[in-house]
Amino acid sequence: MDLTEKTVSTEVIYQGNIIDVRKETVQLPNGALSQREIVAHSGAAAVVALTEEGRLVLVRQYRKAVEKALWEIPAGKLDGPEDPLECAKRELAEETGYQAEKWTKLTSIYTTPGFSDEVIHIFLATGLTPDDSGGGGDEDEFVEVGIFSQEEIRAKIRSGELSDAKSLAGLCAFWVAEGEK
Amino acid sequence: MDLTEKTVSTEVIYQGNIIDVRKETVQLPNGALSQREIVAHSGAAAVVALTEEGRLVLVRQYRKAVEKALWEIPAGKLDGPEDPLECAKRELAEETGYQAEKWTKLTSIYTTPGFSDEVIHIFLATGLTPDDSGGGGDEDEFVEVGIFSQEEIRAKIRSGELSDAKSLAGLCAFWVAEGEK
Repeated sequence: MDLTEKTVSTEVIYQGNIIDVRKETVQLPNGALSQREIVAHSGAAAVVALTEEGRLVLVRQYRKAVEKALWEIPAGKLDGPEDPLECAKRELAEETGYQAEKWTKLTSIYTTPGFSDEVIHIFLATGLTPDDSGGGGDEDEFVEVGIFSQEEIRAKIRSGELSDAKSLAGLCAFWVAEGEK
Repeated sequence: MDLTEKTVSTEVIYQGNIIDVRKETVQLPNGALSQREIVAHSGAAAVVALTEEGRLVLVRQYRKAVEKALWEIPAGKLDGPEDPLECAKRELAEETGYQAEKWTKLTSIYTTPGFSDEVIHIFLATGLTPDDSGGGGDEDEFVEVGIFSQEEIRAKIRSGELSDAKSLAGLCAFWVAEGEK
């Protein structure tokens, strides 16, 4: 079944710092017209960071959009045309103070394809060694670092404390990949 | 560590059909001011639908924002102040033609807390019986239904074919809950 929606016209709504917003008129498979509001985002990279002891490194930061501090896997926006792996390495170092010996691509996810093109490239980082920065984010970023056993992470998922979609998606891809070994 | 960012002022950028956009000036924990672009969304409900044979019901639909048809767990927007469970039941029926005997809350996720308040409430639906509609979505929705074994789903995750964040997050919460039994 060809489900493609063709763009008939595009209206620019907003060009911002992190996001752009546009409204597209599209033609549906049955020929009818409909509207699509689309939030354009540069994309991001995220890291499932696994210690030698099999524990995972998470970060906690305030998310203004949801008015809560959330535990998440380390992540950050791509800097323009930046290579996602380089972005992942930079964000892991900036946020947690860790460097990794081995990097493996886990998957790429669309965070909310109903209204945004944001894609997050997720990597597994192993062979972690602390650098001397201690992490904590860059100048305007306030980040708390936590290291948890996988059982503690599962408990945080069951309790709802771990509620960030990219983090659950990344852990899902990690555990599915582990299960194949 | 108190990571809270206080709102200093708010500017409305756009009030749309699916999303509203606003720009907030916030005060960071160190007293400095920063900007936050926030996409407000009504929230949604999604369903991990498990058949008696342990297979999962997915839907495939075109996502204009990413210009691709994606396999996803059944989901849809809350209709105003609608109860998330009622929304989940409605969307499962509309999109797949299934009704479920038993509903269990799995978790709630923030799809992209860096710039949106969207929350998706995810339920496990078991005891599925087909109604006579066959699903396929409502008037302006074009949806293909697929039923896959959990091993097929894991293969789709490993290959990257299953790339929708809420779907991976919901499957993660489902498998973590199953692992506890």
